[in-house]
Amino acid sequence: VIIETPWHNRPLALMRHDELELVVETYHRRYSDLIADSRVMMATLFMNHGERAGTSLIHPHAQIIATSIVPRHIRHMEREALQYFDEWGRCVHCDILEHEIKCGERIVAENAHFVSFVPYAAEVPFELWIYPRRHTPDFGLLRDEEKGGLADILRDGLARLYHRLGDPDFNFVVNTSVPPKTGTKRYHWHLQIRPRLTTVAGFEIGSGIHVNPSVPESDAAFLRDGQSAPGDVA
Amino acid sequence: VIIETPWHNRPLALMRHDELELVVETYHRRYSDLIADSRVMMATLFMNHGERAGTSLIHPHAQIIATSIVPRHIRHMEREALQYFDEWGRCVHCDILEHEIKCGERIVAENAHFVSFVPYAAEVPFELWIYPRRHTPDFGLLRDEEKGGLADILRDGLARLYHRLGDPDFNFVVNTSVPPKTGTKRYHWHLQIRPRLTTVAGFEIGSGIHVNPSVPESDAAFLRDGQSAPGDVA
Repeated sequence: VIIETPWHNRPLALMRHDELELVVETYHRRYSDLIADSRVMMATLFMNHGERAGTSLIHPHAQIIATSIVPRHIRHMEREALQYFDEWGRCVHCDILEHEIKCGERIVAENAHFVSFVPYAAEVPFELWIYPRRHTPDFGLLRDEEKGGLADILRDGLARLYHRLGDPDFNFVVNTSVPPKTGTKRYHWHLQIRPRLTTVAGFEIGSGIHVNPSVPESDAAFLRDGQSAPGDVA
Repeated sequence: VIIETPWHNRPLALMRHDELELVVETYHRRYSDLIADSRVMMATLFMNHGERAGTSLIHPHAQIIATSIVPRHIRHMEREALQYFDEWGRCVHCDILEHEIKCGERIVAENAHFVSFVPYAAEVPFELWIYPRRHTPDFGLLRDEEKGGLADILRDGLARLYHRLGDPDFNFVVNTSVPPKTGTKRYHWHLQIRPRLTTVAGFEIGSGIHVNPSVPESDAAFLRDGQSAPGDVA
């Protein structure tokens, strides 16, 4: 468990940039330390904020769970990325990012090292993905000069959700491969923020298909400008 | 949408057997009608009960969503079942069922045609699976003489949850293959009841691994006898 601050009720969204930079530094150090252990195949870094996101603790805290297996869920994403690479000779995530930047309408924020956007097929309303611009399979490969950028864009995304949506419950999770252990260099780590505004129900459980009542382009416009895009059906 | 009863606030758990039999008959007719449509590849039958399960309507209702695709989630389960069949010459679900009956400690109820049990690796507390004893890939192949048994065991399971756990929110979903369309005869349909007593959080989202704080054998004993099993840690 990583406790981000001595302040009991100040969420990440309201922290100063220099505080967030220390948080990111801590995430990275703890993650790197855990995956260095020979028994660990995978470490999942995540945060649960609010009761609907599965926590009843107000005090901001993230968690890293180290497992001695690579879950099927991660293997699936690695395999798909590898297959795309075998077919096209490129990282699928680099291509997604390039497409999003070119297209622009789902972008929420950018800085020198990171981009945040609402994914094309967002599973939940106001889902937000943060990608490093540089092809980086493993979160552990984050460079010192990139840490400020990650702190910056994470704070930006969380602050937008906080102010525009009234502090919604959310989870964030770092999706990463661990190439020295799992061998898949084709992955590209990213951070996924999922507000808990809707409830996963029977259809999602039975089919794995998520019903998202919102439009990603409108969600992005609202997070970016505070206004809905033309054609918003919400 | 299938509305089970004209009574606004009588859940399935409190219905009479003959009423449940008509409900099962209706599920089967509507399902069969939908998958007969050439545009439909898959039909997902499910119920959401209570706010934590994704519904705010009290009046009992189930839903069937027909899709023109077979979701990856279902394909995965079909593929695993087929691979098991290729390796062992048997249906994996028939083997699971046989193992559960032989083992006995996770069984909750049995009748001539159906068995309900808490699965060995239950993802959530008090998860309950209902299996037809007869190898049946597709819910559409349910026979007339089996409908009473399904009504009986479904009512039994829901009543146990209702009385022993104080009417918890739950989802149920019918997991089925559609062999005339999808071609996988090795599947074995079953109904999955998932009480919503815990919340899926960041670790589950990130890894696909579910943290279940309860012990399946104790959950089964509690549902069966109203008592926890020896060694219960709950």
